[in-house]
Amino acid sequence: MERNATLTEYKPYTPPPVWKWASQSGGKFTNINRPISGATHNKELPIGEHPLQLYSLATPNGVKVTVMLEELLSQGYSGAEYDAWLIRIHEGDQFGSGFVEINPNSKIPALVDHTKGKGLRIFESGAILLYLAEKFDAFLPKTHIERTECLSWLFWQMGSAPYLGGGFGHFYSYAPEKFEYPINRFAMEVKRQLDVLNQHLTENEFISGPNYSISDIAIWAWYGQLVLGRLYNAGEFLDVGSYKRLVEWAKQIDQRPAVRKGRMVNRTFGDPKMQLHERHAASDYVLKTQDKQTG
Amino acid sequence: MERNATLTEYKPYTPPPVWKWASQSGGKFTNINRPISGATHNKELPIGEHPLQLYSLATPNGVKVTVMLEELLSQGYSGAEYDAWLIRIHEGDQFGSGFVEINPNSKIPALVDHTKGKGLRIFESGAILLYLAEKFDAFLPKTHIERTECLSWLFWQMGSAPYLGGGFGHFYSYAPEKFEYPINRFAMEVKRQLDVLNQHLTENEFISGPNYSISDIAIWAWYGQLVLGRLYNAGEFLDVGSYKRLVEWAKQIDQRPAVRKGRMVNRTFGDPKMQLHERHAASDYVLKTQDKQTG
Repeated sequence: MERNATLTEYKPYTPPPVWKWASQSGGKFTNINRPISGATHNKELPIGEHPLQLYSLATPNGVKVTVMLEELLSQGYSGAEYDAWLIRIHEGDQFGSGFVEINPNSKIPALVDHTKGKGLRIFESGAILLYLAEKFDAFLPKTHIERTECLSWLFWQMGSAPYLGGGFGHFYSYAPEKFEYPINRFAMEVKRQLDVLNQHLTENEFISGPNYSISDIAIWAWYGQLVLGRLYNAGEFLDVGSYKRLVEWAKQIDQRPAVRKGRMVNRTFGDPKMQLHERHAASDYVLKTQDKQTG
Repeated sequence: MERNATLTEYKPYTPPPVWKWASQSGGKFTNINRPISGATHNKELPIGEHPLQLYSLATPNGVKVTVMLEELLSQGYSGAEYDAWLIRIHEGDQFGSGFVEINPNSKIPALVDHTKGKGLRIFESGAILLYLAEKFDAFLPKTHIERTECLSWLFWQMGSAPYLGGGFGHFYSYAPEKFEYPINRFAMEVKRQLDVLNQHLTENEFISGPNYSISDIAIWAWYGQLVLGRLYNAGEFLDVGSYKRLVEWAKQIDQRPAVRKGRMVNRTFGDPKMQLHERHAASDYVLKTQDKQTG
């Protein structure tokens, strides 16, 4: 990026009495960050054949849900068959009227369950994981102690990852220039979070104890993928290799077939062979594999 | 605050290959933010008479839990009697070995339920609200649709408030100087969130529908108190009065007796008459009221 000459002149900033929305560079997300909510245009959402309709994108929050659905299918819960539709956030799909109706917060992922007549909306990836875990009675520990621990960590992930994504990731990778103070602030917090996980996993096989659960799925999507070097090109900067037990856990989960499938769904970046823009049936993966063999 | 001369010289920043923990000013929280986790000193936690033991501070996340406990008690759930112990985060209490044992993330609030023998830990304010709602079967809607909506909004609060607290609040109030880009970034996002709530409440009496629930308690603690002008002295800057329906809802909840009580617990700032540093019995409030009459 060209450095804008006006940015290099430092002048102390005094906030105005009342904040105003000015045209300004917000880096990569300038066009999709707005101070107001609601729909910008009319657009109905498509609806496929299955009871579960997912509207998403393969960001870490999106991947949580597709991994969960694939895990459920891999365990034989056929009721978890789903259609996954692509929401291209850089093109503003999240501001279409149909999407806003199922998530007034205009963020992916959002799920609609058509099982009982009128579609039931669920938004926020953590809520979707819990909804699916309760619906199928799976990936949520059975004992009171372990279930409680699982939910503490699920909420931990939801409250912690904004410091990784909206904080560190934004300032390290997406902001229009490298601002030292915010990068330091958020790098310190992310490293603390990585250490929390690393120490916890040193004493536990999985996040909530002996069983793989929705708290692993949620935390893996962000912190697992971070230590595997997949987020923000920040592996070296954050010295992710030093969190050895966390890396080991992340690699173990990464090898699960359902995780590989889940990562492909609604993916629009990276290796084209890993991109399944929409998912409507288990056979979609087979076709994609054939692509790979012939492509 | 005196402006440090070195801060006024702008020099473009290039992050080093590997981030290092340097002694630096992080504003108000310099001494308590660390890139590593775990205990810094040995200190057991006190344990009172009641089954529920809360270790907290009256930040918005702390207030969520004390409001919930007071709401339960006001509805006659005597099993919700609790001891609330003060965790002074600026003095590092959250890094004591006893606290780390019940919350490896070293953040308030943390709850221990001694009802069944060995204490069961619950951490993250959202997890504590859900735990208590399920334990007492209260403040969590009974119908599947409304319960699902309640949990979506509970998770929404957990994933959104870091942009308000760790983002906007930090850069607007606590950072060592006013950085324009982060203030703009987070002010825009917080205003969007306020608009999401305002529009949603225009069509709903409470957050998840016709019934007051844990999603109201969670959202009120942050966004309700923000529009009531209690956070970061930012009411004018964010023009909170323009979110009329949200203000109306916030005032309505603010008038609940349980909310007033909950706000007092573990409170160490503001009007001394509103500060009940520790709470061990319902009579503590009576004593405090007598203080007020005589003080």
